[in-house]
Amino acid sequence: MKQSIKPRPQIDLLADGILQGNRMMLSQAITIIESNLAEDQKLSSGLLDKIIHATGNSIRIGITGVPGVGKSSFIEAFGKYIINLGKRVAVLAVDPSSQLSKGSILGDKTRMEELSKNSAAYVRPSPAGNKLGGVAHSTYETILLCEAAGFDIIIVETVGVGQSEVSVKNVTDFFLLLMLAGAGDELQGMKKGITEIADALVITKADHDNVKHATAAKAAYQQALHLQPLARSGWIPGVLTASAHTGEGIGEIWKLILSFTEQTMSTGFFHDNRRQQGMEYFEDRFKSILYSEVENSPALQAEKEKLKHEIQQQKISPTRAAEMLLIAFHREAGMRKF
Amino acid sequence: MKQSIKPRPQIDLLADGILQGNRMMLSQAITIIESNLAEDQKLSSGLLDKIIHATGNSIRIGITGVPGVGKSSFIEAFGKYIINLGKRVAVLAVDPSSQLSKGSILGDKTRMEELSKNSAAYVRPSPAGNKLGGVAHSTYETILLCEAAGFDIIIVETVGVGQSEVSVKNVTDFFLLLMLAGAGDELQGMKKGITEIADALVITKADHDNVKHATAAKAAYQQALHLQPLARSGWIPGVLTASAHTGEGIGEIWKLILSFTEQTMSTGFFHDNRRQQGMEYFEDRFKSILYSEVENSPALQAEKEKLKHEIQQQKISPTRAAEMLLIAFHREAGMRKF
Repeated sequence: MKQSIKPRPQIDLLADGILQGNRMMLSQAITIIESNLAEDQKLSSGLLDKIIHATGNSIRIGITGVPGVGKSSFIEAFGKYIINLGKRVAVLAVDPSSQLSKGSILGDKTRMEELSKNSAAYVRPSPAGNKLGGVAHSTYETILLCEAAGFDIIIVETVGVGQSEVSVKNVTDFFLLLMLAGAGDELQGMKKGITEIADALVITKADHDNVKHATAAKAAYQQALHLQPLARSGWIPGVLTASAHTGEGIGEIWKLILSFTEQTMSTGFFHDNRRQQGMEYFEDRFKSILYSEVENSPALQAEKEKLKHEIQQQKISPTRAAEMLLIAFHREAGMRKF
Repeated sequence: MKQSIKPRPQIDLLADGILQGNRMMLSQAITIIESNLAEDQKLSSGLLDKIIHATGNSIRIGITGVPGVGKSSFIEAFGKYIINLGKRVAVLAVDPSSQLSKGSILGDKTRMEELSKNSAAYVRPSPAGNKLGGVAHSTYETILLCEAAGFDIIIVETVGVGQSEVSVKNVTDFFLLLMLAGAGDELQGMKKGITEIADALVITKADHDNVKHATAAKAAYQQALHLQPLARSGWIPGVLTASAHTGEGIGEIWKLILSFTEQTMSTGFFHDNRRQQGMEYFEDRFKSILYSEVENSPALQAEKEKLKHEIQQQKISPTRAAEMLLIAFHREAGMRKF
């Protein structure tokens, strides 16, 4: 048989580049990780193995809020503030529009423009997961890559839609919820469940005529949060006002995050939580690749369609159909080599 | 080899009993279905196959609301009303307390006492799923059994906690949300997301001094629902007041449900939705039994623990660990017979 001489992807080179903070190689690696091609997925785990020892040394911050709350402006102001403290910041912006365009281009190119140009910052639009505004499986791995590339602060931004906040919470240390003052109880109430998982609530656009409103909203939320059960972390969520425009409150938010990490590191929660997140990612990933063997097998897909048809005709129960698909799965798996 | 002569479970007898409406046999069957023993699960699918042809002929109603809203009283009043119309009613009460007691006993034995004694009704506490107030996998199958036993109306009751409403929505045709008037915006707001999946909102305890409050709340909710996007069903949610005490409004709710089924049957949504629910249950069930092969294998559990340890030591990435567990899964599966 003729030996294949097609150029092998330079995993070692890529890993070295990332560990040296090479942003172009980081981008390349993230693209590989986001790809669903079997070949790329193989590369991904090889790459992750080579950088895994250099991960974990960041603060992972999830930021969410409804459209119009000023997420981009806030992240830009906050990012520049911590860069001035000598930190390096990576922003993974989960872009729901990518769902529609089937790509991962940030529609509005002017978003976080200044931050994007800063050499201490790395802004990367991330493809949304299955659901609008969701977090893709690759987000967890992208965080690891950014840590290996030396970023001290990883911000995962998501639009406040559906279950996305929960997914962001599952891959971050600190969860920050941005809110508008005076947007009406109607609007705020709908996002109320999230306040229970937030480590801080920030009332944005607290400038000019809006300061009074924002201060009132802050007091109202402090009151409301008071009624919530204490979080597993033992941390009492902070409520702050901020303005991306005047810079008001940005420093306080950073201080709050630092006192959160200090407190939760001393209680052990910080690392316990990270460990648990890693274990959950492992389990989710396993289930996902296990199930994708069914999705990727034409024979099993045909079997599945046949079974669905029989369920519809009430010939078999969904329970029995599931068992029959499992038998087909093992038959099929037994015919392949591992 | 000596032939085993242990008595085989009388699946045929059980199926016949259910199809003839025998309540004791129905209860026995549900117990088998709720069991996690491998042997019982095998019996379950055999049993379901024998009754599946007789399923589907009911209206499946999900009812939820926060504790204190008066779910039991409402269901008792509503159930008696439709029994008087000549219908047979099954109530599957998902009991979150069973999570704690590891059983499935309804703590408060006096709940729905009258209904429980009525020969046209069948009240069955259901074990909660993984989450507090959740719906167990067996709920879907229990609905099928109750239909086979000739119940025209299946009510699935759940406490309004966490994700349980979504699970109930996934196994029912009509989703009814019970609410209290004047419980404060604070409380109501927290459950606001649910109004989007509700087919009707019922303000309970609309009697005596409370009528005014309830009527005002009804108007407020009608206004609020007006702002919501139209549901996939094309159905505009109804808002009603009711009193379990005076019977006020109970007949209107039944009429509303009938006009929902009429409308959605004529558009085709009713059956499309059922079909989709069946397919989703099939997929979920398959994933669950596939994954339980890992959970039930001591060798794979040992491998998983080893991998977890290596993840914690940052020797391998969770991504790689998932791949290694998949390889172990196939190795293990190859050593068994199917």
